[in-house]
Amino acid sequence: MNQTQPPPLQIGMLLYPDFTLLDLTGPQGVLGLHGKTHLLWKTLDAVSTDTGISLNPTTTFGDCPDDLDILFVPGGFGTPQAMEDPEILRFLANRAARARYVTSVCSGSLLLGAAGLLRGYKSTSHWAVHELLPMFGAEAVQARVVVDRNRISGGGVTAGIDFGLVLLAQLLGEDAAKSTQLMLEYDPQPPFDSGTPKTAEPRIVKQVLDFLEPLNQQMLRGAQAALRATST
Amino acid sequence: MNQTQPPPLQIGMLLYPDFTLLDLTGPQGVLGLHGKTHLLWKTLDAVSTDTGISLNPTTTFGDCPDDLDILFVPGGFGTPQAMEDPEILRFLANRAARARYVTSVCSGSLLLGAAGLLRGYKSTSHWAVHELLPMFGAEAVQARVVVDRNRISGGGVTAGIDFGLVLLAQLLGEDAAKSTQLMLEYDPQPPFDSGTPKTAEPRIVKQVLDFLEPLNQQMLRGAQAALRATST
Repeated sequence: MNQTQPPPLQIGMLLYPDFTLLDLTGPQGVLGLHGKTHLLWKTLDAVSTDTGISLNPTTTFGDCPDDLDILFVPGGFGTPQAMEDPEILRFLANRAARARYVTSVCSGSLLLGAAGLLRGYKSTSHWAVHELLPMFGAEAVQARVVVDRNRISGGGVTAGIDFGLVLLAQLLGEDAAKSTQLMLEYDPQPPFDSGTPKTAEPRIVKQVLDFLEPLNQQMLRGAQAALRATST
Repeated sequence: MNQTQPPPLQIGMLLYPDFTLLDLTGPQGVLGLHGKTHLLWKTLDAVSTDTGISLNPTTTFGDCPDDLDILFVPGGFGTPQAMEDPEILRFLANRAARARYVTSVCSGSLLLGAAGLLRGYKSTSHWAVHELLPMFGAEAVQARVVVDRNRISGGGVTAGIDFGLVLLAQLLGEDAAKSTQLMLEYDPQPPFDSGTPKTAEPRIVKQVLDFLEPLNQQMLRGAQAALRATST
């Protein structure tokens, strides 16, 4: 096996209506250079995202390879509905049982939780829904990227880039991650210090919490529904 | 006009074969919450990106609104071919003449240059093709985001998030940008200090330059072809 290239990574990324496009394209921009990306959905029909762009699935749940290197779940405004969809949850549980890494960004971790995949694992999520993770038996950790055995999760949206680089280093080594970071010119310079509730001005935090309040209520109801479905 | 909401931003984003998905979805994730995104292409057929995912145009060149708040151009492996496409360059020049902001991320600035839109303007690009900007009469500036009158450009790929927040602050004010940054949890923590050639280890820089060499040769040829077409 010396002097041969490793086979390209098999990367399975879940789509669902009204997921957040950047949750997925951050990690895909990092990992997609090193493997084959399967965009997974029930059918091959275009799937809407939550800022008005659609993405085309490449692979149906039925055609998804049995053994993925990475099973990835994005978050988004559509997460609550997805948590109540048994077909999605069954598919995730099935492939996660065989995948090398079971991963998420943003509220995608709630979907992994709803599928029963975070019991006894440390995980993170978007800061605004962090507190829901323990409902699924997960230990909520406030960090940009959380690694616990083969479960790796990123925080909200843009954390997906940091997440992707951490995962790539685990899969292909630090040099691959460093050269990819250079290729993507990931030398961030946020124009404001407003990326977490710890540093943002209180009135900005309040503004975002007010905006997200209805969504967070939906997230809670979705989580409760998923737990009821499991217990019956 | 007091107490009325401003009309949603009209955001026109160019698609072309083998552009870099994350060049576009970074800014779109920031700006898309505040307006209508038009994904622009000659037809409504899906357009490939350079890591194997396709995106669906929403609006043809012919149907694009005359007056855009933002005209945006991503970069990518397909930039050289796009620089030689007179239909794309004519479209960009036409809408740029009326747009409030004429913008790019990564090698997208070379396309703006090829369309004659950067003469006498400061601009930036992906670090590996930075030196081509003066061919188009632009002043190349090494910075994450460069603002010169109504031209705003971002550096390579992930610079699109910083770019988007700077542009949003100009359009809707700092509070809108700060709350969007918090919503996207943009508190980056790159796992390595490898995001620019200034900080990356020399062997990593060499690895990426070797990988990009054929593309950069194509970029140069595309730029020369665009200049020849203009001068005849």
